[in-house]
Amino acid sequence: MNVVVQSILRTDPETVRGLALQSVATVHEAQGRKGLMAPHMRPIWTGAKVAGTAVTVSVPPCDNWMIHVAIEQCQPGDVMVVAPTSASDAGYFGDLLATLFKARGVVGLVIDAGCRDVAELTQMGFPVWSKCISAQGTVKETLGSVNIPVVCAGQIVHPGDVVIADDDGVVVVTRAEAAEVLRLSQAREAREAMVRDRYAKGELGLDMNNMRPALAAKGLTYL
Amino acid sequence: MNVVVQSILRTDPETVRGLALQSVATVHEAQGRKGLMAPHMRPIWTGAKVAGTAVTVSVPPCDNWMIHVAIEQCQPGDVMVVAPTSASDAGYFGDLLATLFKARGVVGLVIDAGCRDVAELTQMGFPVWSKCISAQGTVKETLGSVNIPVVCAGQIVHPGDVVIADDDGVVVVTRAEAAEVLRLSQAREAREAMVRDRYAKGELGLDMNNMRPALAAKGLTYL
Amino acid sequence: MNVVVQSILRTDPETVRGLALQSVATVHEAQGRKGLMAPHMRPIWTGAKVAGTAVTVSVPPCDNWMIHVAIEQCQPGDVMVVAPTSASDAGYFGDLLATLFKARGVVGLVIDAGCRDVAELTQMGFPVWSKCISAQGTVKETLGSVNIPVVCAGQIVHPGDVVIADDDGVVVVTRAEAAEVLRLSQAREAREAMVRDRYAKGELGLDMNNMRPALAAKGLTYL
Amino acid sequence: MNVVVQSILRTDPETVRGLALQSVATVHEAQGRKGLMAPHMRPIWTGAKVAGTAVTVSVPPCDNWMIHVAIEQCQPGDVMVVAPTSASDAGYFGDLLATLFKARGVVGLVIDAGCRDVAELTQMGFPVWSKCISAQGTVKETLGSVNIPVVCAGQIVHPGDVVIADDDGVVVVTRAEAAEVLRLSQAREAREAMVRDRYAKGELGLDMNNMRPALAAKGLTYL
Amino acid sequence: MNVVVQSILRTDPETVRGLALQSVATVHEAQGRKGLMAPHMRPIWTGAKVAGTAVTVSVPPCDNWMIHVAIEQCQPGDVMVVAPTSASDAGYFGDLLATLFKARGVVGLVIDAGCRDVAELTQMGFPVWSKCISAQGTVKETLGSVNIPVVCAGQIVHPGDVVIADDDGVVVVTRAEAAEVLRLSQAREAREAMVRDRYAKGELGLDMNNMRPALAAKGLTYL
Amino acid sequence: MNVVVQSILRTDPETVRGLALQSVATVHEAQGRKGLMAPHMRPIWTGAKVAGTAVTVSVPPCDNWMIHVAIEQCQPGDVMVVAPTSASDAGYFGDLLATLFKARGVVGLVIDAGCRDVAELTQMGFPVWSKCISAQGTVKETLGSVNIPVVCAGQIVHPGDVVIADDDGVVVVTRAEAAEVLRLSQAREAREAMVRDRYAKGELGLDMNNMRPALAAKGLTYL
Repeated sequence: MNVVVQSILRTDPETVRGLALQSVATVHEAQGRKGLMAPHMRPIWTGAKVAGTAVTVSVPPCDNWMIHVAIEQCQPGDVMVVAPTSASDAGYFGDLLATLFKARGVVGLVIDAGCRDVAELTQMGFPVWSKCISAQGTVKETLGSVNIPVVCAGQIVHPGDVVIADDDGVVVVTRAEAAEVLRLSQAREAREAMVRDRYAKGELGLDMNNMRPALAAKGLTYL
Repeated sequence: MNVVVQSILRTDPETVRGLALQSVATVHEAQGRKGLMAPHMRPIWTGAKVAGTAVTVSVPPCDNWMIHVAIEQCQPGDVMVVAPTSASDAGYFGDLLATLFKARGVVGLVIDAGCRDVAELTQMGFPVWSKCISAQGTVKETLGSVNIPVVCAGQIVHPGDVVIADDDGVVVVTRAEAAEVLRLSQAREAREAMVRDRYAKGELGLDMNNMRPALAAKGLTYL
Repeated sequence: MNVVVQSILRTDPETVRGLALQSVATVHEAQGRKGLMAPHMRPIWTGAKVAGTAVTVSVPPCDNWMIHVAIEQCQPGDVMVVAPTSASDAGYFGDLLATLFKARGVVGLVIDAGCRDVAELTQMGFPVWSKCISAQGTVKETLGSVNIPVVCAGQIVHPGDVVIADDDGVVVVTRAEAAEVLRLSQAREAREAMVRDRYAKGELGLDMNNMRPALAAKGLTYL
Repeated sequence: MNVVVQSILRTDPETVRGLALQSVATVHEAQGRKGLMAPHMRPIWTGAKVAGTAVTVSVPPCDNWMIHVAIEQCQPGDVMVVAPTSASDAGYFGDLLATLFKARGVVGLVIDAGCRDVAELTQMGFPVWSKCISAQGTVKETLGSVNIPVVCAGQIVHPGDVVIADDDGVVVVTRAEAAEVLRLSQAREAREAMVRDRYAKGELGLDMNNMRPALAAKGLTYL
Repeated sequence: MNVVVQSILRTDPETVRGLALQSVATVHEAQGRKGLMAPHMRPIWTGAKVAGTAVTVSVPPCDNWMIHVAIEQCQPGDVMVVAPTSASDAGYFGDLLATLFKARGVVGLVIDAGCRDVAELTQMGFPVWSKCISAQGTVKETLGSVNIPVVCAGQIVHPGDVVIADDDGVVVVTRAEAAEVLRLSQAREAREAMVRDRYAKGELGLDMNNMRPALAAKGLTYL
Repeated sequence: MNVVVQSILRTDPETVRGLALQSVATVHEAQGRKGLMAPHMRPIWTGAKVAGTAVTVSVPPCDNWMIHVAIEQCQPGDVMVVAPTSASDAGYFGDLLATLFKARGVVGLVIDAGCRDVAELTQMGFPVWSKCISAQGTVKETLGSVNIPVVCAGQIVHPGDVVIADDDGVVVVTRAEAAEVLRLSQAREAREAMVRDRYAKGELGLDMNNMRPALAAKGLTYL
């Protein structure tokens, strides 16, 4: 059955704003190295960075009808997450839809399929993470669903989860864990600043983290 | 038998100039969603956009001899379209050949194989759409053919067809259909300008295109 | 057995400096079209160009412990070459390690796996050639080896070999052949300058290199 | 945190036995074209067919320690479903583990990574669906989790779900829906038997399903 | 526009029967190393071998409606060739359709997409060459065309062309060239029988074909 | 420079005969998990198993001339290992060459490219491990080298090394280590027989290898 879930619980905006300041790599580490989408998900332009609450869309291959349905369910600050039910490299999204997305306050798109009009999207500054770039047109014939859990590029995404995306890719944080992951990310960032200072002076990780005994215990031999 | 067809019928220049103002996505849609090469065909630098008449080249794997033969057949405004007879990721083309191409007025290269010297090509502003970037050298040992129909990245290209390429990829328009496709592209563009204005105000596609009854008829359920 | 070879013979610095002025494509040709890594090795930012002496690292999949061991073996002017023993797209390297690499004078990283923090690395101007971009974290559990011969992206690399990398990819020159390859590269470059001038005037390769008799002998037919 | 959930709710055995008589294609259709793993999941030998209740395992790349942990949680009739947290083509499983699996009554393995000893596994008749065949060894260094929801080859699998696998691939049915999906599968199978008879006599689907008016309405033109 | 071309010219049956006795490799060589589909086209069972006249079908991604339209256009001895307009790995074809194909005398299917029910198809002895095996269901929503030229796995196929397929893959021979290609294939086969005899006695190709002077002329050095 | 090294040191035949009784997985483990070619190297028929001494061949893409040169250098018991200098999926090898190989006593072929005539090769019982199956013809135009070190599917192979191949893939053992690897393989095999017996009785690896304390120490939590 194809459904549109209209009422979803979103991660609170303050937490999302906090996560928007963190990098994908930091958040991924902070939450125990989980939630990272597969590396085929690439930004269509360099330097994009967003965090937002997920509105999820399950779409048929080569059919973008449900994106039109889903945009009505979006609120400012949302990121739309689109997952085809079967592999597709069609171009589901272009500059017209991006115009509507911007008007509605949607801050980005994550789609495990193709995107087109990338020159125009770059000029508009609308960020998209996609599997590929393709002008291949889509139809509006078959239903899908909105705001059900979807698997996108190897990760499960629930509506209302936080999606953080930058030049490294896309990571998902569940609503339940978002506040704690933010806290851990900030702590990690602070710790990294300290490490960065010591690395900048040439101090080795071998010494800083006392790795030599463990290496020796495992049998590493210096010739 | 390996042949060089010296006399080909090119799409008329005015139509090509008109198509050069259209995007790959628009042209692809205007001609009924056909003619689009596979998405592995990517520009070597961002922002390139050309349209030209195809001089087609069928080449052996890892052998660029026929490109030298083909350039003699080119006229200003042509795009060379190169298709290997067996998959190859060698670098058939670099800055030296690009110098000759520019001197001869060739406006771009579309090759379902590799390209090299991309830093130099970017600096020269010579646009190439290729399967990959590779410095792998090629030989000059085996013949191919020039200006026969070729299949390039999944599309058939006849000599004289129009090839349009931008950041979204590459689309082919047959000579017979080019004028009509230009007309339809311009009409589409005009229609899209109107849609863009309404989307910019936040009007939904659901309403603009009256999609709700069709969605309901298919059984979409709002929860 | 897992070893760290501490004393390696490096190609002499002057030769390396000379090769740093040559492009990957030129060096690859000059040494007889060998030594080129597979085209999946791409720079994380455009315009990077380095040459350096290889410190080689054989690493387990998803485990970057040995990079910490290897950095201690590096000298200014080195390029680290990292090859996993089994395919991995994890992000072995990020901005923290890059800070240490810069402090130690390492001029670049070549890794047949993933890299992360690419926005930060771009800002730092630290060049990396990698198989993919991925924030996926790695562990520090299993040993590998440093400064043994490794196969990286299809090419064997010995410690002390010269690694040259630019927007076209990565090429390896053995220490024994480096001086001669430099000489041949420079000679080739001089020859290419002359060819470029003639191409710029529109002279065909067919004529410049007297290809027509050979083409005719092979049976090429002009229609 | 790495956990082993020891108590899981399994789909009732009678339903599983019923589904074991259905093909992957039928079940996939019967449940509304969902639950199908990506087509890279292939059986290591032809003719295998199983259905069982999922014991799920989230494993690090190239580390099969958790499979040892997970087997203790298995009951006769289970299928183990193994998903790495980062892409891996290592050989996590071979004939020794298969011996233990058989002794414990596990009926098959579904793993989005590599399998080895396929000659021996074929001789033993132990069925495995995997991403690839690879003798690459794994380590036992890093923890994972058992009986948490995992994403395997693009599909979410919960412990206790039914996994059906045959020469066409692997499909997952949730515990909640299993009984209904069985009923629908059986109904579909009955209907297909009737269609098969009519097809065997050469009756067209065009006529049997009265497709001609719909085709005409869409504009199909017979020349 | 979507069309069904009802009247096509087929290669004469005697030529097709002759080509059915030739291998794909022989035919590919005999016609000058052209017409071979990409190597991702694999038989779903080992040992299949067919030749037939092509009925071509251009289909939307994940939509098999046009296969129902196309079967009406088939005659005994035809091979159906199906090419999606955008990449798809859905399972367009299974044992029900195969039942109808057999009833209608269609001798095989070549599809640059997925196939399902492969266990049943193997049992029926119905041969299919496909890009992948996948149970993913398709819809019947969007039109395509029948008996227009299509590009399938990198080769153009015209209706009525001969398609030969065996364990090595699929090759296409145009109707115009079929008789001559058959003649050349038979000649090649005769020649190969002679070569096989001499090879079986251990005679080297170096000697049989007098390769040594050419190798020496190119500079091959024996150490 | 292209060379044929005529005199190579082969691993002694008794060791090779011993390794022929070992599986690829066992040998790979016994030599410390190294030497395994990438998993895209697959046997063209199931059940093949060989070990032999390597005659190595570096070939240009789509050019099999050097295979003719290399066969003259082979002795009974050799395995030919062919590595293209640039990626190729052409069919370098078919039943004619296999006839000659058999006549000369070559026991198998390992090629990081394509193979053809697989139906005939299967009937002949000649084993090949290749990257793909393809009927694409090759030329005889460009030189390569014989019996130089080559990188094949990610592994370096020296002439005279032992190559072991079975349904799991291909592993290389250096001549220097072959005797010791044989000893370690046999020891491993003996140990595995003992483990197999205990697994067959249902004893867990957790207990047999006393894994529980280490798991607890790493923090594994049972719920």
